[in-house]
Amino acid sequence: MVSPPAVQETMGSILRLGRDCVFVDNPHLDTLDEDVLYHLALGTSTHDLPAMFGDVKFVCVGGSSRRMKAFARFMAAELGLPDAEADPPNICAGTDRYAMYKAGPVLSVSHGIGVPSICVVLHELLKLLHHARCTDVTVIRIGTSGGIGLEPGTVVVTQQAVDGAFQPRFEQMILGRPVVRGTELDGGLVAELLLCGRELSQFETVAGNTMCTMDFYEGQARLDGAFCCFSERDKQEYLARAYEAGVRNIEMEALVLAAMCKLGGLQAAVVCVTLLDRLQGDQLSGSHELLESFQQRPQRLVGLFIRKRLQASGSV
Amino acid sequence: MVSPPAVQETMGSILRLGRDCVFVDNPHLDTLDEDVLYHLALGTSTHDLPAMFGDVKFVCVGGSSRRMKAFARFMAAELGLPDAEADPPNICAGTDRYAMYKAGPVLSVSHGIGVPSICVVLHELLKLLHHARCTDVTVIRIGTSGGIGLEPGTVVVTQQAVDGAFQPRFEQMILGRPVVRGTELDGGLVAELLLCGRELSQFETVAGNTMCTMDFYEGQARLDGAFCCFSERDKQEYLARAYEAGVRNIEMEALVLAAMCKLGGLQAAVVCVTLLDRLQGDQLSGSHELLESFQQRPQRLVGLFIRKRLQASGSV
Repeated sequence: MVSPPAVQETMGSILRLGRDCVFVDNPHLDTLDEDVLYHLALGTSTHDLPAMFGDVKFVCVGGSSRRMKAFARFMAAELGLPDAEADPPNICAGTDRYAMYKAGPVLSVSHGIGVPSICVVLHELLKLLHHARCTDVTVIRIGTSGGIGLEPGTVVVTQQAVDGAFQPRFEQMILGRPVVRGTELDGGLVAELLLCGRELSQFETVAGNTMCTMDFYEGQARLDGAFCCFSERDKQEYLARAYEAGVRNIEMEALVLAAMCKLGGLQAAVVCVTLLDRLQGDQLSGSHELLESFQQRPQRLVGLFIRKRLQASGSV
Repeated sequence: MVSPPAVQETMGSILRLGRDCVFVDNPHLDTLDEDVLYHLALGTSTHDLPAMFGDVKFVCVGGSSRRMKAFARFMAAELGLPDAEADPPNICAGTDRYAMYKAGPVLSVSHGIGVPSICVVLHELLKLLHHARCTDVTVIRIGTSGGIGLEPGTVVVTQQAVDGAFQPRFEQMILGRPVVRGTELDGGLVAELLLCGRELSQFETVAGNTMCTMDFYEGQARLDGAFCCFSERDKQEYLARAYEAGVRNIEMEALVLAAMCKLGGLQAAVVCVTLLDRLQGDQLSGSHELLESFQQRPQRLVGLFIRKRLQASGSV
């Protein structure tokens, strides 16, 4: 599939972005008197974004607002910040679309479910980082997923984000025409995160490809949605093919996170725990406590990673 | 594009569904001992779904949980229910993925942003209606959108849900292969809703096609996202083509709502207010109060529709 001339990606936009990045690639932004980040209830004329966010070095995103609030509290304690015990305020309290918390240099933001939902918040987060003149920012999704052939509770660090046909490509419609973007993630960052998992050694951490789908039921070959027109055998064959293609877990956001961070010149990673082994079943029927404890694993791993990064840069 | 044999839709599944519908089409569901509706924090073995939901006749969905809570309160007052002034309890309090409120026969449920997010909750809502043995259920999305060539605040009742190429088709990946589903909505229901708009006569209500996109920025030809590689002229040409194709508003959920309700044999409608005219701009910079008041318009229209339907059936 060939991108039409009007919407072709320019390599230049990527090349001119170094570690001191601008995060955006849009000449029209310079012409705006004001930039309203509508879904975050923030804006350039209503908020002093450099003062509020200029020190941000890590943007961690995850589906659930409760989980991202818990992660902000966890990071505040990890980094020995004052008021680590207090309930962190929701910076986006003016809206209920997304929630945002800050713990020192760590921004913890919820993204809801699925590619369009995380796409909206990433557009506004990248513009926020740009307006706040942040530098050296790393983006990490800490999420949940279904595993393939892994013990439930295993944490997967994504090597490649792939689509439902196991391809590392993200296809979007722009001006009514398909545009394909690459979804490469940073191999060095994957290795760094795997090392943190080994150092923690509290749970299994593996590298693998992550399949990102547009649906939780039919799109992930589940037999328990409202609709299903394939058999258990069809499902098992599909999951076996996914495994052969290196896929170790399935979720709903990795493709666009990888594509957008690549376009914006940001280091990005996806770290998800597997809540079940899809070869064994489809239903999430584990106890609330067990699933809850699994969800803390990516937080602990990424917490260690952030502490080590900050130590290495002399910040803590 | 041809559906592969394994996932071809059978016309029979639609034909055998009458007004007393079963809402689902999945032989595997009968084999489950228990059905955990994970993202609703409900289940067949933990909740008495027929007792909780057996009387539901209207399922209203919208992106924001705050708005859907306000709608439940509004409907409780409209229907003269006891405790209409009280804060309705969130039936899905066990999760923060979605929120659900009930006002008599009206279920008011948030769906988050975008096709995958509403797709997950619709799978679980259709199974809930099935398990609760509901009959004669109508599904209505009450949402917000960007208008094309309409005064902001105009309410659009969707005639056809179309994709970014203005086609009434919803393409999904199932078992790694594309499956295309129809997105026809009920013409009689559109006419009924337009009549309610005329009867209310508090704001403009029009019928039009609704374009459903996978992104709020580039996907809707906005010039103010983190990335943009097209010009104002490209944007205006695209929106002009959309207008010629009958598109009067743009949002992010209509396609899959139309497709899934059609598959499940439910009457469905999409009623969205336009928050701005996209021919005039991209930013949502209207005052909070103005945008808030616009968002109440679909609620008032659908509130009247529900009262009239219940009066016609002798229920109130």
